[in-house]
Parts: sequence; structure tokens; C-alpha cells
Amino acid sequence: MSSKALDYESLNENVKKVQYAVRGELYLRASELEKEGKKIIFTNVGNPHALGQKPLTFPRQVVALCQAPFLLDDSNVSLLFPADAIARAKHYLSYTSGGLGAYSDSRGLLEIRKEVADFIGRRDGYPSDPELIYLTDGASKGVMQLLNAIIRGEGDGILVPVPQYPLYSAAIALFGGSFVPYYLEETANWGLSAADLGQSVAQARAKGITVRAMVIINPGNPTGQCLSEANLRDVLQFCYQENLVLLGDEVYQQNIYQDERPFISAKKVLMDMGGPISRELQLVSFHTVSKGYWGECGQRGGYFEMTNIPSRSVEEIYKVASISLSPNVPAQIFMGLMVNPPKPGDISYDQFVRESKGILESLRRRARIMTDGFNSCMNVVCNFTEGAMYSFPQIRLPPRAIEDAKKAGKAADVFYCLKLLEATGISTVPGSGFGQKEGVFHLRTTILPAEEDMLEIMESFKKFNNEFMEQYEDHPGYPRM
Amino acid sequence: MSSKALDYESLNENVKKVQYAVRGELYLRASELEKEGKKIIFTNVGNPHALGQKPLTFPRQVVALCQAPFLLDDSNVSLLFPADAIARAKHYLSYTSGGLGAYSDSRGLLEIRKEVADFIGRRDGYPSDPELIYLTDGASKGVMQLLNAIIRGEGDGILVPVPQYPLYSAAIALFGGSFVPYYLEETANWGLSAADLGQSVAQARAKGITVRAMVIINPGNPTGQCLSEANLRDVLQFCYQENLVLLGDEVYQQNIYQDERPFISAKKVLMDMGGPISRELQLVSFHTVSKGYWGECGQRGGYFEMTNIPSRSVEEIYKVASISLSPNVPAQIFMGLMVNPPKPGDISYDQFVRESKGILESLRRRARIMTDGFNSCMNVVCNFTEGAMYSFPQIRLPPRAIEDAKKAGKAADVFYCLKLLEATGISTVPGSGFGQKEGVFHLRTTILPAEEDMLEIMESFKKFNNEFMEQYEDHPGYPRM
Repeated sequence: MSSKALDYESLNENVKKVQYAVRGELYLRASELEKEGKKIIFTNVGNPHALGQKPLTFPRQVVALCQAPFLLDDSNVSLLFPADAIARAKHYLSYTSGGLGAYSDSRGLLEIRKEVADFIGRRDGYPSDPELIYLTDGASKGVMQLLNAIIRGEGDGILVPVPQYPLYSAAIALFGGSFVPYYLEETANWGLSAADLGQSVAQARAKGITVRAMVIINPGNPTGQCLSEANLRDVLQFCYQENLVLLGDEVYQQNIYQDERPFISAKKVLMDMGGPISRELQLVSFHTVSKGYWGECGQRGGYFEMTNIPSRSVEEIYKVASISLSPNVPAQIFMGLMVNPPKPGDISYDQFVRESKGILESLRRRARIMTDGFNSCMNVVCNFTEGAMYSFPQIRLPPRAIEDAKKAGKAADVFYCLKLLEATGISTVPGSGFGQKEGVFHLRTTILPAEEDMLEIMESFKKFNNEFMEQYEDHPGYPRM
Repeated sequence: MSSKALDYESLNENVKKVQYAVRGELYLRASELEKEGKKIIFTNVGNPHALGQKPLTFPRQVVALCQAPFLLDDSNVSLLFPADAIARAKHYLSYTSGGLGAYSDSRGLLEIRKEVADFIGRRDGYPSDPELIYLTDGASKGVMQLLNAIIRGEGDGILVPVPQYPLYSAAIALFGGSFVPYYLEETANWGLSAADLGQSVAQARAKGITVRAMVIINPGNPTGQCLSEANLRDVLQFCYQENLVLLGDEVYQQNIYQDERPFISAKKVLMDMGGPISRELQLVSFHTVSKGYWGECGQRGGYFEMTNIPSRSVEEIYKVASISLSPNVPAQIFMGLMVNPPKPGDISYDQFVRESKGILESLRRRARIMTDGFNSCMNVVCNFTEGAMYSFPQIRLPPRAIEDAKKAGKAADVFYCLKLLEATGISTVPGSGFGQKEGVFHLRTTILPAEEDMLEIMESFKKFNNEFMEQYEDHPGYPRM
């Protein structure tokens, strides 16, 4: 009998081609070890609450009340909830036709989209149109919707930074497009250069690939760099000249750990440029409730804003979003709260500021502890995490370690990360999952372990690393650092 | 300059091919009229809470507490929440690593999947494996994941009932596959026959299409029929013989309005059959928190269970699910509650039973009122809604109405439904959105408007319909019913 449709050999080849290292071999092994009783520190994915970050109180109060609207009629409600949370819950419920249990419009609730537009307007100093803002079940879903609309087949290329967050390579593979890498320069603090971009596009063209869009991740994942205004201008100019859609992954815009380069959105830079480019360049920008000091990953809330996209295409994207009826409504409320947090004078304002500032300041300290920790290790160098939630140290593996990895049938960085996991319980992602230059090895960790555990984790890492290096370092031809 | 990637003409053609009538022309026009201040009765989509159905109290209490876990430490919590809701919230929070704000495993929380497996085991009398149950953001997302894994290109066909819920035609178009219709027989109460199925497959093969999977919707959407055990056996036998995966859309399994044919799952019938078919036939079954007496559409919770799918394919589906990291966690809790509702003796049991029974009994009465109402109208015939949430009357349009529609550039059923909307505010979906035999016209409404409004709505419909028919009926050649 011929094979069945869900036998492995007869599955959609694009599905099989997908690779997704963040939940790949290392994660699966870590999950196994955890089942066996080993204490695992999951730093494979930016999942702050899983590592002990507490949710912000006010938004949770509001969403709890929206889930249980009958509490609003209970005279005891004020014993458990502050008046501004009660008022805000009523406010959001008034946006819905039937509360959190009713499908919203497939683009999300109009009134929340208006709040998002107001937020963007305040942030950038340029008006934003709620009809061009779509709410999504997390930013990843939005990115996938856009890539699905853009990619027609393997002749269509998407320019993606390397190292990259593997959502992009995975989604491009799933939709049958071509991944076109542009390399970030580690020695230039993971910067990008327009000349390199041009070369990447030229190489793709030589292979018969039409590059259709370019992705930037700002702040960078896994690399942590923050793009300067000048850098963004170069990117926009390049996209304009090469006729590319720019996809701006800006989910880490609240996660900034230095003062030299505050976050600036691609939309603002584009509007500041004025002239034809500001009216013609197609830009889609993504945001989320999963990152920042919110970290509400499990709620799955995001949005994208479309700039200079023709209305007929906007309608097509709406139509496809309609197939799954509506993004989840509770996360839409979180998005409303994120773009419209408590204001000075509100009952909950002080607590909200205390909580959110506490998280951000601690992240900033943790970014520093982690970078310094890695840089104190043998054969490890690491750029400072300027933003986002990750550290991406380069691990200079001795040739004998590379050989042993080969014998074990593993990529060298996978080999190293597996040994790290077994020895310390630290679950990282090998750099090859994000893309690497030939012969260069990295790993990615989040900076999210609790601050009080951080020194100990870095000590544990250092002990493992240095023993590993010493074990393999006795090869005479290998230079000691 | 050549067109840009997000210009309409250069979009992915599969995106453009998608049609989704449930949120199509009628819905858009209804939304416009609502903005202009007209009172609209949205019966275009099965969205119970939007039409006034109240959420079940106990699950909402539990999820509210999970959203605001700090309440569990507040001594006043018992003034607002019963002890069993408090206990259940603690129970579900213990399943998570970091509460609702943390990503879960991409398949959903293991402990919830175990609760689902227990539910399926109790329902069917056969064990179910939590490793083969994946939680999803609503059942639609699960259906799309499976179709995406199955469809490799336009040579791959999916057998879908007509009339069908347009999720199927839309997703098949999006993934570039071929839609292979099999017609349900309206005069046989929307039954299906194995002979017709064979003919559909033969016709597809003649066009060079390999039929890879078959969809059943039981109870039917939009048609409302409940499949008998014998019918299901025929379908399973047919799929086995033709080497098809069976996709069983069973989201309406709680919505049954007659006693002759209670819901029976495809999984149970398959297991009852025993022998090689029960160990070989590839079956995927879908369920949701959006339907039943829950109606929690806006939460976006669902699951699918895989039977006889090779583990390597199960892993591939896991990998693709991982790209979007995790289904939303609050809806996973709703799923846990749905498969594990309060038990006799629990504090909240009586209230839960009162609420859920009240909803189901009212839906049963509404199904009857609606069918009777349609059947009392001129040129309208309607099968009884045995299950699900819809009524799907046939509208026998006079030839002059069909001509006028043609002049207006509209399909005849769209023409009728638009006039109905303008005259009464009742927002339906034209039957052509679900598929029609040539020259036959229907509309779909939900049976969800509040029971106390139902008679009035049906009166309003009848008045419009009979005037419409009288206006067009003076054509001498057309037989009066």
C-alpha cells in the first residue's frame, strides 16, 4: 500500500525543512533531564515569568476583572481591587460585544487599535492609523502572516540578519521562500553595513532569487545591539533603492540597557526622512506584550502596524486573518494596558512604576553581570547586551573539541552546549541555531535568571567552561588566550 | 519601477485566492450599517457571548484567579470566590512554570493534555495518549496546522463536505492544495453516501489530483446534521480503502438538539471497529472551548488528538507548532476546565449544571423555533438543526429575483441576504459561501439570538421574505409553493 498522507515521507517538504533551535535538541534534552529530576535553568527562550519575574499587578487586576465581570456588581469588589483597576476593566469591557468570550473583529477590537495608534503617535511624533494596525496572537503570528503574503515561492528571497532569531528562517522555510543572509559584524558590536547588504542582494540575484523584503531586529535577538538612527536611515535608504519591504521586529523596544542609543522606531526615522521615501517605502513594524518589563509571553498578544501598504493588500491580510476569526481577546486587553499604562495621579501609578522600573533596572544589572561573567571565562568573548534579553558569547573551541564533536556526530557548538547542560543544568541554545560564520561558535542565553542567582550561575558556567577548555587545550598547536 | 512586494499584484496568489464568507461582503456591509447607527443582529458567526449568552461562572472565577494569583494570598479572597474555584486555580497554577505569563510547551501544558486524555478516555471508553494531544489557539489553528502538513501542492486534494464551513476551502486555498467537494444530500437531511464519496474521489483522480484527506464536520456546520454510528463506520471504511487521513471536526459535540442520534466520536467508532483499520487509519479529531455551552470564542482554546500518526510526523507537527512558541495559556486553563467541570458535591456544581443546562435547553428550543419559523415562510424549506449552532434554510428564489441579482452584479443569494440585512438588520451568510449545488440557494444563520427575541426576529424575517417573494413571484412560469 502506498504511504499515507501523514507518514513522514509524504509530508509537505516545507514542513520538514523547518528548523527551530530555540525548542530544538537542547530544549528536548533539558526537558528529559528535568523529568528525571535534574534542576534545569531554562535560558533557551525569553520567558521571564518562567524564571521568576512577577507579573505587573495592575494589568493582571484589570484582566482578572474582565474575565469575571460579575465581580463588578459585587459590593466586596473594592476589598480586592483598586478603583482604577475596576474603572479600567469597565472601560475595556465596553469595547467588546460580549466580553472576553466573544470573537472580536479579526483585526482585533477597534478601540484597542485606536489606543495602539495613540501610543505610536506619542512615541514617534507622527499620527498612526488604527485601520492599519492589526492585533495578533503574539508578534510571531504577525510576522508569519506578512511573510505568507509576501512569499510566492523559492524565487522570492527575504533578507535576514545572521545571527537571527530562527522564527525568520523557520517561517521562510515553511512558506517555501529563500533565506538570504546578511551578516552582522561581531567585532563592530554586531553592526550592519549597507555595503554588505548590497553584496547579499547581489549574491541572491546571481542565484535567480528576487529579494522582496528585509528583516531587522532592533534591539537585536540574539545579538542585543541597538541600531542607531544613522544605521536605520541607511537601512531604509537601502530598502527604498532595492525596492524591498522592511519588516521591523521591534519587540524589545522597552528593553534598553545603555543610554547612548535609546530605541528609535523605523517608522519615526522613515517619517523624519520625509520626501518620496516616506510616502512609498513599505514598512511593517511588530510589537508584543511578551517582552519589555511585561513579559506576558503566555498571553500571546501582539500587533503590527503597516505603513505605505496599499489598501487592497491591507484587505487581503485582513481576509487571511479572518480564517482564524480573531486574536485572543484577553491579550488584546493586555495590549491596551501596555500602550496605556497607569498615569501620574492614578491610584495604581506608584506601584506600577515601582514594579516596572524594578524589572528594567534589574535586567540592566543582569546584562552587565552576564557579559562580564562571560568575558572572564577562558576562550569566551562577548559583546555587551545593549538591549533585548539575550547574551550571545563567542566560544572559541579548541580543534580537539571540534574533532570530538565530529566523532560524536554533533555540531561543535551543540556538543559544547549539551555538555554544559549535563554538567550545570544551564539550558542554552547553540549559536548554529541562529546562523554562524564558518568555524565560529556561539551560544545564546537569556539574561533572565533571577538576579540573586546570577553570580552563582556565571560561576557554574565558568567552572564548566574552563574545565572543558583545559581538557581540550593541551593540543600544542592551539594558541592560549 | 517594478511593483513592491506588498502591492496587490505581487502578493502570494494563494493569499488572493482565499475566500472567507463568514467575514465577507455581508459582514462588512453589516459593520458599516452598525457604524451608521442601525441595529444589527449578527448571526453570521457562531459567537454566543456576542448575542448575550453569559459565560459560565465557575470557569471564569478560576481563570480570573489564575490571572491574579496574588489574590490567593489575600484573606478577603473568599468573599468573592468560592473555595472550589480557589482550589482549582491553585491546581492549574501548579501546572505552569510561572503562571499564565509564561510560554508553555508548544503543545500546551502536559498536565492539561493529561486531563484532555482522561476526558477522551471517559467519553469513548478507550485510552488516549496525552503525547498525541496538542492544545491550540482555537480549533481552526489546529485544522490549519494539519492541512499545512498534508498539502504539498495543487496535486494534493482534500475531500470536504459541501455545504462546508469555509475554514476548509480557505485553508486549502492558502496552502495551495485542491478542494475536492462531496455533496451532502439536503433531501436526506444532509446525509452523506459512500457511493457519492467514491465518485468525488474518482473525479478528482481523473483531473490528476491525489486525494490525501477527508474532512467531516459532526455535528454539521452549516447543515446541523448529526452523523449516525453507521454513517461514521462507512466514512472510516471509505477512508481506509482510499488511504485517506480523516480530519474529524467535532467542535459541536456538546450541541445536540435531538435524542435519536447522540454524538459519537469518530475515534470511538474506529476503535469499536477493531482489526487493522483501528490500528492503521490516520485520524485527527478537533475540539474547542468556543462552542458547546461554553461559547468562549474570544479565549481561543482548542485541541487536536492524533490517532495512528507515526511518531516522526507527530514530531514534525510539534516542530512547526514551536515556531509560534505556545498556544495562549489562559485558554489552556479553559480547556482543562471544560474537560474537567465541577463534580457532584463540589460547591459550584449546582450552579454550573444550572447554567450549562439552561444554555443547552434554550438552544434546543431556539433550534426548533428557527426551523419552524423558516418552514412557515414562502419559498423557504429548512431541515431541523439536529446539532451545532446553525440553521441553513433553502431559499427558492424566483427567476426574476435571480435576473435582478445578475443585473446588480451579485450572486442571487448575496442579493437576497443584502436586502434582508438592509430591511431587518439580520446579518446572515449567503449559502454560496459554504458551497451550493448549481441553481440552489441558501443562507446560514446561527440559532444564537436571545430566546426572548427569537419570535420577533423570525417574524421580521418572514415579513421581509414574503414581501420579497411576492414582489418577484408574479412571473407566470414559476410554481407557487
